[in-house]
Amino acid sequence: MQRYFIQLSYDGTAYHGWQIQPNGITVQETVEKALSIVARETVAVTGAGRTDAGVHASFYVAHFDTGNENLDNEKIIHNLNSLLPHDIAIQNVYKVNPDAHSRFDALSRTYKYYVIKSKDPFTRQYAAKEVRIPDLAKMNEAALKLFNYEDFTSFSKLGTDVKTNNCKVDLAEWIDEGNRLVFTIRADRFLRNMVRAIVGTLLEVGFGKITIEEFCKIIEAKDRCAAGASVPAKGLFLMDIGYPEELSKGLIRP
Amino acid sequence: MQRYFIQLSYDGTAYHGWQIQPNGITVQETVEKALSIVARETVAVTGAGRTDAGVHASFYVAHFDTGNENLDNEKIIHNLNSLLPHDIAIQNVYKVNPDAHSRFDALSRTYKYYVIKSKDPFTRQYAAKEVRIPDLAKMNEAALKLFNYEDFTSFSKLGTDVKTNNCKVDLAEWIDEGNRLVFTIRADRFLRNMVRAIVGTLLEVGFGKITIEEFCKIIEAKDRCAAGASVPAKGLFLMDIGYPEELSKGLIRP
Repeated sequence: MQRYFIQLSYDGTAYHGWQIQPNGITVQETVEKALSIVARETVAVTGAGRTDAGVHASFYVAHFDTGNENLDNEKIIHNLNSLLPHDIAIQNVYKVNPDAHSRFDALSRTYKYYVIKSKDPFTRQYAAKEVRIPDLAKMNEAALKLFNYEDFTSFSKLGTDVKTNNCKVDLAEWIDEGNRLVFTIRADRFLRNMVRAIVGTLLEVGFGKITIEEFCKIIEAKDRCAAGASVPAKGLFLMDIGYPEELSKGLIRP
Repeated sequence: MQRYFIQLSYDGTAYHGWQIQPNGITVQETVEKALSIVARETVAVTGAGRTDAGVHASFYVAHFDTGNENLDNEKIIHNLNSLLPHDIAIQNVYKVNPDAHSRFDALSRTYKYYVIKSKDPFTRQYAAKEVRIPDLAKMNEAALKLFNYEDFTSFSKLGTDVKTNNCKVDLAEWIDEGNRLVFTIRADRFLRNMVRAIVGTLLEVGFGKITIEEFCKIIEAKDRCAAGASVPAKGLFLMDIGYPEELSKGLIRP
């Protein structure tokens, strides 16, 4: 069997997230179906991680095994893109070692969250709208505090079955781009719903509902009920996944 | 009666263009209906020009008259945006002189056309896809020739009832933005279908189907049949409309 990495992007609007589930169509099953047609065998696809329903990925990596050791990359990319719906695109398919793993070998994930300040016909599916103007300096001051903590239970969806709630955040920053506020966050891993809960709680700092000290206390509480409301999925994009150099060689970054 | 300018933007995907017509829903009638509800009287809206079915406008200006000489701008903008569907947004409403005219006073129009080189889930409604890579330098050389001509009959839709086919193009440029090619064109006025016919014909230059000399001969022929095929509407955006200073004061530009 030969293992391949596959790089893709998807508009999550129509999907119940990445991972296969009984209640709705997911990106994983859509890619598996197309890949199984193209490869002429049943192919299972393992992704770098879950994304929630409605969340987008402009950069996503998965892996699959096939008996075909010499897939014609150009042809398979072209055929997959023809078969797949308009909201999923394949950027690359390339050989990796049999023990390479899209999830376990990932070193970091980078997400962006977009907030628009006024109605915009072109980003309505890709940003949350917030007419109140938050204090970005305060939000950035609070965001820096994320570097001081490892346990993010307060920002995790309840009832998930992960072994640890520890994450190392090494980038967390808001930028004002005119009509758009952009939050970028990078960590080795994320808990379910974590980015959207952090954004929601940082916005509460920005609106003066809670202080930076209270923001820290929320993290220290290790209690999801302490944090602010989660922001809508449509504003969230998985933007990058970091891999060791030997696995990154086939990844296409903007 | 008081005249107002109204600045708006719209995603043209769902509309049969700006101008009211019997066969489908247009932006003009949608705005008129909302405005008539908000103003509590029947309000007619006159736009800066037509846009074809499926064409977008990130910047559009229209005018209307109302007996209400003291519209509360903030309130009317908010109410219009609440009433209007997600694909039309109002940026501003402001008083102008009774003889100000959104179409006749416009000094220039700027359009952009977007071509993407590979499948992209996020711009599928906002760009044409072209897998072949055109020669951008040649296309820019040909685009400069547009400055030498005034009669653009060759790039106009047949059977339109305009008095003259003369336009003054003073900006026409292709830029390579990675996965996206962007064509910007500015002129005092445009004929129907003109930008899309120019883009289609410039792409033929870029693909080596016609020479720059042949491109000039097409313009000189003053015959629509001589030009290349029109490119899809979804890649075209009206980006700006120039006005004299006294009418520009209320316009919000990015």
